[in-house]
Amino acid sequence: MAGRQAVKAYLDLVSQPCRAVLIFLKDNKIPHTVESIAIQKGQHKTPEFIKLNPMQKLPVLEDNGFVLTESDAILKYLATAYNVPDHWYPKLPEKRARVDEYTAWHHENTHMHISSVFLHEFLLPRMGLPNPEMLEKALSDLDGTLDKLENMFLKRQAFLCSDDISLADLLAVCELMQPLCGGRDILKNRPKLLSWRSRVQSSLSDSFDEAHDIVYRMRI
Amino acid sequence: MAGRQAVKAYLDLVSQPCRAVLIFLKDNKIPHTVESIAIQKGQHKTPEFIKLNPMQKLPVLEDNGFVLTESDAILKYLATAYNVPDHWYPKLPEKRARVDEYTAWHHENTHMHISSVFLHEFLLPRMGLPNPEMLEKALSDLDGTLDKLENMFLKRQAFLCSDDISLADLLAVCELMQPLCGGRDILKNRPKLLSWRSRVQSSLSDSFDEAHDIVYRMRI
Repeated sequence: MAGRQAVKAYLDLVSQPCRAVLIFLKDNKIPHTVESIAIQKGQHKTPEFIKLNPMQKLPVLEDNGFVLTESDAILKYLATAYNVPDHWYPKLPEKRARVDEYTAWHHENTHMHISSVFLHEFLLPRMGLPNPEMLEKALSDLDGTLDKLENMFLKRQAFLCSDDISLADLLAVCELMQPLCGGRDILKNRPKLLSWRSRVQSSLSDSFDEAHDIVYRMRI
Repeated sequence: MAGRQAVKAYLDLVSQPCRAVLIFLKDNKIPHTVESIAIQKGQHKTPEFIKLNPMQKLPVLEDNGFVLTESDAILKYLATAYNVPDHWYPKLPEKRARVDEYTAWHHENTHMHISSVFLHEFLLPRMGLPNPEMLEKALSDLDGTLDKLENMFLKRQAFLCSDDISLADLLAVCELMQPLCGGRDILKNRPKLLSWRSRVQSSLSDSFDEAHDIVYRMRI
């Protein structure tokens, strides 16, 4: 890595995938700097940021002039380019496919339903736009996703894709922490997911709590 | 590959990601057999199929006892395990990351909005449940996605992730063909996407038309 500049991560830690990227960088000791972009202040809509990412979304990674978006792709790129321990994103095709299978599923399930709960329980009410019916639907959709995490992915193994932690667990756990912002611990009656969350936390360094500090402080 | 059994693909060609898997298998001459599962007949809900994929979704791949779901993961697994030409899923980290970036984005954009248009324009009206308002919203969301495909992904290159075809183009093109089932060519006023579609078709063997035969026949 000699002569290589530290990667630059554009993050807002209120965003769940941004926390996953930060934890991954810290836990794997990948030299990095963080550029904070406050979404609530509209800093992702400045001409400068739009030039960097026309999608106006976070996280963004910059590695020696190479600009990459989408947390899923960023974690996989970092795992490959920085040669992190194999368990994060195994090289064996069958094992890697299990991680790709979860991450493909993640977008329209874990991520989408958590984002919807956050929108209807936290963001919109603060803008004077509560919609209890939509919140109910979001919670019910999320329940279906939590059932699948327990009964399919965690059915026979300690982590989502194998018996060791992978970037799939990291993406998932950062999502499942998000409803804490609205004072809701969605895992409290889910012992299987709770013990999985403990295992994930134990596998990580202090980076987990550091990245989630903002969530703990936002908690209602 | 000697001694290796042909892979088995469980597919319903009415489903856009199933077509992508079939085209990939055929175009790369990967020995395979197809097991047809008719979603409209509920064949994805039989006890036998649920045992194979508890998510009750297609496509599913079976490779010497290894069962994999999610088209995105299936294509990446096939590209790696069957050593297809590099352009489909490049090994160089920066190039591979561009494909992972598109596929991560694909789920909640191209795939989700196309599925919504298909639901509200084709499936629900046939069940006596038309909802013109929801169709309008789906079409408007899809328009935003088409704008991004043109103005971001295809801005400076011939295909979505580089100047050569990748599995990202294959996943995308199969989605964008889907509204033809309802008689709608969503690309007709989009010259940039139309010429991209021609390039994708030209890059593929007859497999493209073979896989889409059912779409051409369903066209209203």
